[in-house]
Amino acid sequence: MRLLEEDFLYHQVADRLESMIENGVLKSGDKLLSVRTLCREQGVSHSTAFKAYAALESKGLVEARAKSGYYVRFLPKSAAPRFAADPEPNRQWSVEEMISEVYEKMSESGVMQFSLAAPDISLLPSAKLNKCLLEALRRSPSSCLLYADASGSENLRRQVARLSFKWGGKPGSDEVVITNGCMEALSICLQAVTRPGDTVAIESPTYFGIFNLLKSLHLHALEIPVDPETGIDLDYLKTAVQNGRIAACLFIPNFNNPVGSVMPDAAKKELVGLLADAGIPLVEDDIYGEMYFGKTRPRSCKSFDRQGMVLYCSSFSKALAPGYRVGWCLPGKFLSRVRQLKLTHSLSTATPTQEALSLFCETGRFDLHLRHLRKALHTQCLRYSQAIATFFPEGTRLSRPQGGYVLWIELPRKVNALDVYRRARRQQIAIAPGQLFSLSDQFAHCIRIGFGAPYTSAIEMGLKRLGNLVM
Amino acid sequence: MRLLEEDFLYHQVADRLESMIENGVLKSGDKLLSVRTLCREQGVSHSTAFKAYAALESKGLVEARAKSGYYVRFLPKSAAPRFAADPEPNRQWSVEEMISEVYEKMSESGVMQFSLAAPDISLLPSAKLNKCLLEALRRSPSSCLLYADASGSENLRRQVARLSFKWGGKPGSDEVVITNGCMEALSICLQAVTRPGDTVAIESPTYFGIFNLLKSLHLHALEIPVDPETGIDLDYLKTAVQNGRIAACLFIPNFNNPVGSVMPDAAKKELVGLLADAGIPLVEDDIYGEMYFGKTRPRSCKSFDRQGMVLYCSSFSKALAPGYRVGWCLPGKFLSRVRQLKLTHSLSTATPTQEALSLFCETGRFDLHLRHLRKALHTQCLRYSQAIATFFPEGTRLSRPQGGYVLWIELPRKVNALDVYRRARRQQIAIAPGQLFSLSDQFAHCIRIGFGAPYTSAIEMGLKRLGNLVM
Repeated sequence: MRLLEEDFLYHQVADRLESMIENGVLKSGDKLLSVRTLCREQGVSHSTAFKAYAALESKGLVEARAKSGYYVRFLPKSAAPRFAADPEPNRQWSVEEMISEVYEKMSESGVMQFSLAAPDISLLPSAKLNKCLLEALRRSPSSCLLYADASGSENLRRQVARLSFKWGGKPGSDEVVITNGCMEALSICLQAVTRPGDTVAIESPTYFGIFNLLKSLHLHALEIPVDPETGIDLDYLKTAVQNGRIAACLFIPNFNNPVGSVMPDAAKKELVGLLADAGIPLVEDDIYGEMYFGKTRPRSCKSFDRQGMVLYCSSFSKALAPGYRVGWCLPGKFLSRVRQLKLTHSLSTATPTQEALSLFCETGRFDLHLRHLRKALHTQCLRYSQAIATFFPEGTRLSRPQGGYVLWIELPRKVNALDVYRRARRQQIAIAPGQLFSLSDQFAHCIRIGFGAPYTSAIEMGLKRLGNLVM
Repeated sequence: MRLLEEDFLYHQVADRLESMIENGVLKSGDKLLSVRTLCREQGVSHSTAFKAYAALESKGLVEARAKSGYYVRFLPKSAAPRFAADPEPNRQWSVEEMISEVYEKMSESGVMQFSLAAPDISLLPSAKLNKCLLEALRRSPSSCLLYADASGSENLRRQVARLSFKWGGKPGSDEVVITNGCMEALSICLQAVTRPGDTVAIESPTYFGIFNLLKSLHLHALEIPVDPETGIDLDYLKTAVQNGRIAACLFIPNFNNPVGSVMPDAAKKELVGLLADAGIPLVEDDIYGEMYFGKTRPRSCKSFDRQGMVLYCSSFSKALAPGYRVGWCLPGKFLSRVRQLKLTHSLSTATPTQEALSLFCETGRFDLHLRHLRKALHTQCLRYSQAIATFFPEGTRLSRPQGGYVLWIELPRKVNALDVYRRARRQQIAIAPGQLFSLSDQFAHCIRIGFGAPYTSAIEMGLKRLGNLVM
């Protein structure tokens, strides 16, 4: 009986280790647990542990090294090549699937990334941010290991409040909630002002992540047309408001993603008044607001908000540190509800990254960096635009954004953007097809091109090949 | 006309700066924007900017320093003392409000924190983790500034897969999704397997954060009784399953918070089988699994899962780095849905903290640290228990946890834990009253005491005062 049990145990341990070697969790040269530790932690006898390792050794998977222990051996990879082409070229994709695919390809090396609305690493002040991170660890009595407040670090909330001066605000630091990037800010703000089944007005076209967000919160989207220059069609919105279907709005009034429109101040003021009168909260995504090419920063809707009905959201992801995942919101009268949701869904935001960004702002480096970044982006925007005008077929129309990271290209009506996307992928070029930016089919001939990467001859070649593809 | 507009503008700028000085966003000694920058970024004329600063100067709020610019002056604080006592002693609190209050008091200095289920900073290897963070920045070509994969860093997912060996698993790294702590893991796993209006079975008593989570996702809670030794009452659960009301379960099978129970292996196996037969997914919170005092780590329910119906969740928050906010889940057959939800709600988890933790595990430091931590916690548990047995009144019953961070104390029936909580607060002692751990009133005479802080004479005094308070 005792023997049988031991037999079962050693097979079980050996089997699990073998799986982990096969699926690459344990790699050549990795040290296995010592026999002593294995016995103690898995509650098996010495002989069971030895038998398990011996079984793996006899299969040639591990080797014993004198006075050191057991190691995973060098194993030649079974080099089954991955099939790179699209396995189901004729299948109808859902927007959700396409978005996942775009994100999956995001960090693929060797691919020319025109699909992102984000800065190239060469535009980011990595050495100076590293210094701030080290300094933050040094200054914190607990090395940033303990929880920050659920609303965020007091230091960072003060810096975010200071940044608000730029868009016309004057909030106190206790009105700020720090989040895991702008996506979490949008998610909890939307949850604070809606219930499942509600309808939310969004721009058309708009950032594709918003469709996933609404769907996962069981909300319906009502698309409001956007003018490429002046943003939201206020007359259209007014009618929708009068029809009484809208529970909340989620708009990107500054440098709308993807068309780049900016609502004029008067339109922002009218929008805020219209929604306040109807008792409809506005979630304002201002993530591109600081990336303006003109002389002055566009104001936010929040700066016209007298009744606390605007929930302002932004982040450091576009301007400074995408991988830090630090954003924020100023939820107006919904502050306590938003705080509660932040606490409920992720407790608090990581402490080291918050403190590093706070130092970066405090020293004035952020302002300086933004000035450089804006200049670089403006130049890149112009050069990309010129190349597209040169290489793309007649009948192509191009947006003229005054800020942000993206160009919106209307191709001749007969072109299907999804076909362009697939053909480009085969040439190692990634773009965002128009189908991603609306639930309707009206942008099926459009594509979005990000100009976050500095303009080089390789980029020029990429745009040229893309232009040829479209023809 | 021109003059009137300028008048309006300078008042507006001065007013916003004055607010920011008054609410502490701008502090004594802070430098204001240069006049040039103010003009450029806010689009105002030189004379407007000067007038705004002059107005602030004449109010004594800012001062000009020669060749340097404008600075906020030293302002004597209006020292209105904060009223510390409970402003509404007789009001009925909601569980939600109590939880918010417990978290708000979490980082208050000068308060003896028995309310947390978390390690004291002195138990954490901060210097070694700092080193790993620096090394991670050094190794990353982009200084960890770029987005990690939505599912998490490949390095860290491999380390998490390796850790799974300890609880009886053998997952590949592509089965892991990295999250912003265990709370986000629980949140997205629950969202993946439920719809608003569904009923979720939870333990009674259970961790209070779970009530907030269910409420915010519009889910109903069905409380299943827990035995202080063996966990979930399986007969009770069986009946509930047969009644067909349960859409999912969310349990803490190892070292349940707050009672410390551990389900025996046979019970775990039975639970997994029972739920699989009924087609009910199990979200398993194993956040305390590594903090065992006995010889071997308790297995997880996930290790008995043959059908991918268990969504395993855990994190580094209890063992290593609460403030890093890095957790994970293994969502079984719900992997692609959970990945999608992670992408939708927060895009990805912060890169620097993920890479630092990955290095910490890779070098074997995590195993070593866990061994020290377990010993320390076991000792603390015994000494706290002894003190409570000594200082608390007759009729007090105390849990005997074999792992984790907390003791569960049943006081004589006539005692109201909320009263104890309030009286303790006045003496700068924080505890978690039993009312937090159930929607029913059945634990109103219980309190939870965390033993995460090393036992000192100050702790002993605190427990003694607490014992006196209860009498």
